[in-house]
Amino acid sequence: MTPRILSPGDTIGILGGGQLARMLALAAAPFGLKTHIYAPAGDNPAFDVCAAVTQAPYEDEAALRGFASRVAAITYEFENIPVATACMLEGLAPLRPGSKALDLTQDRLTEKRFIVECGLSPAPFAPVDDLDSLAAAMAALGLPAILKTRRLGYDGKGQAVIRDAQEAAAAFGALGQVPCVLEGFVPFAYEVSVVLARGIDGHAVAYDLCQNEHRGGILAQTVVPSKADARVRAEAVAAATRLIEALDYVGVMAVEMFVLDTGKSRIVVNEIAPRVHNSGHWTIEGATTSQFAQHIRAIAGWPLGKTGLTGRQIIMNNLIGADIALWRDCCGETGADDADCYAHVYGKAEVRPGRKMGHVTRIVR
Amino acid sequence: MTPRILSPGDTIGILGGGQLARMLALAAAPFGLKTHIYAPAGDNPAFDVCAAVTQAPYEDEAALRGFASRVAAITYEFENIPVATACMLEGLAPLRPGSKALDLTQDRLTEKRFIVECGLSPAPFAPVDDLDSLAAAMAALGLPAILKTRRLGYDGKGQAVIRDAQEAAAAFGALGQVPCVLEGFVPFAYEVSVVLARGIDGHAVAYDLCQNEHRGGILAQTVVPSKADARVRAEAVAAATRLIEALDYVGVMAVEMFVLDTGKSRIVVNEIAPRVHNSGHWTIEGATTSQFAQHIRAIAGWPLGKTGLTGRQIIMNNLIGADIALWRDCCGETGADDADCYAHVYGKAEVRPGRKMGHVTRIVR
Repeated sequence: MTPRILSPGDTIGILGGGQLARMLALAAAPFGLKTHIYAPAGDNPAFDVCAAVTQAPYEDEAALRGFASRVAAITYEFENIPVATACMLEGLAPLRPGSKALDLTQDRLTEKRFIVECGLSPAPFAPVDDLDSLAAAMAALGLPAILKTRRLGYDGKGQAVIRDAQEAAAAFGALGQVPCVLEGFVPFAYEVSVVLARGIDGHAVAYDLCQNEHRGGILAQTVVPSKADARVRAEAVAAATRLIEALDYVGVMAVEMFVLDTGKSRIVVNEIAPRVHNSGHWTIEGATTSQFAQHIRAIAGWPLGKTGLTGRQIIMNNLIGADIALWRDCCGETGADDADCYAHVYGKAEVRPGRKMGHVTRIVR
Repeated sequence: MTPRILSPGDTIGILGGGQLARMLALAAAPFGLKTHIYAPAGDNPAFDVCAAVTQAPYEDEAALRGFASRVAAITYEFENIPVATACMLEGLAPLRPGSKALDLTQDRLTEKRFIVECGLSPAPFAPVDDLDSLAAAMAALGLPAILKTRRLGYDGKGQAVIRDAQEAAAAFGALGQVPCVLEGFVPFAYEVSVVLARGIDGHAVAYDLCQNEHRGGILAQTVVPSKADARVRAEAVAAATRLIEALDYVGVMAVEMFVLDTGKSRIVVNEIAPRVHNSGHWTIEGATTSQFAQHIRAIAGWPLGKTGLTGRQIIMNNLIGADIALWRDCCGETGADDADCYAHVYGKAEVRPGRKMGHVTRIVR
């Protein structure tokens, strides 16, 4: 079957109503594409910038059918959409990326095994289903180690560090004794991500490596270019490209990685995000094509855009929780700063600690 | 009274639902500002990217009151909003820019007299109310000359060229024998515009001079930088700044000018547009702050942003009528072109000859 190519005037359906959906909708508009947001009740800032809205649970089959009948293609802003929902929609309209990427990345254990199958190195890991397998995992990986729930973790949620064997039972209990993965600590030099896109023709294009700094499990800052040398860059992009191809993926994807100081392979693959990603927000002003426009191009079936930088250095800082009050200080008044500065306020109704409320991008031209 | 300063979460009301309102709404979103579009029934592409909509005539007082009660400030996307509407709204919410700019620019005669009062040179002109005053105007200005309706002209509409005195009655008749202005031909070398903004603190900032080419009375292309030398640039910006200050204006404004090859003053002021302007569309990707973001900053009461270029040369081409089919050729595929290329499709439902359907911006970095 020839894949469907979208045209201006068509509507893209987006599952999820948060800031990623909002920025996708804003990126679709200049192409003359409409967006229809599907999201459960809650704080949905994407509702403010789209042509149509369906507010319903992800399990509401009638609502999903109505939604699918009104759009030319469907995408999603986050990886915790129920796979059953994705599979059902896939039968009704082109779902880009497809349910395979969701299925694989919703479970940390499946994801890590997939990374291994692709010939790449994840952090050392072992499955944990009960206290016995947790004890075995600790023996195999050593301590400290990080216990993570297999499902529904993000921004440091669903994780507990175990520094001492005596903390193990409490950590497993705090995570609800659900199926977990224990991850060995990786003595990394720094963290990077590869944000890349693949079109329906199978052609993949990556942005320059993003160097990331997390605080409390949440991305705090991304700097581009990274300090990676040419060899690390090439290895990181090759790894991400192998993953995106193995997933037969259409759209933008991000792969978080640790970079080691030594070793033959210096790249450890940490996590795959089957969507536009926080570490790619700098591309809105910092790259010729933003990751959001690139995702729209890919899912519309169009050629991908250029990924070059628009400045010498780009720095993106998240505004987390009460940080949002700083947006105005960073708002690039005339002549206030040598760099060009762009504030992004996501329009969320409620400020909560640890909640991503906005970001600021500075470009040194 | 201290002028109202907006905050993220506030709603900006926009009168008009066309592409300018659409691009204003898209520029408001990254600041966390919502937009509420007020427009009469019709093709309103701005409706697809805003948080709320009122579809009602500009004379519907109840609808206008409801609209004003739900927004923190009001702006407009075009100069033909009835002044009575603007004056009424001004009593209910901050209207930026105010009704004075509308009142002056809705009537070509009033506008030209205002330009003269500011010590600047419009094209030679004379009022025309009937065939007698038309004959007197032709005698004074010579032929060829252009007869323009005093009100409701845009994109070459409401205009007729008179090359021979025998055509005069037919031209006046074709324009409906409404009050007109006859304009003498200006032997200009090229056309430019100054797009500039003024904040609520009275500080004004201009973009680099835009060099414009019209075809059939409609803007076809804008190139930045223009071929103007430093003296012409300074004179043009000084003229536009004088006008924006005399209007006590808040927001983005454009002044279209003719540049002469000779003369002590080389600038002739053609037209004032009290709004964001087609000749400023290049700023979306071609300047640090787009004219739309700048207008939002100004009407929100915030400091203005930087206006520097993001490349060495920026070229904006309008996609008029059936040209819209070209959007994809211009869509900047990976490696297809040395320049960075951005398509903007306005999402209008119907393609009509002479209708502005989109534009394409190319940036040579």
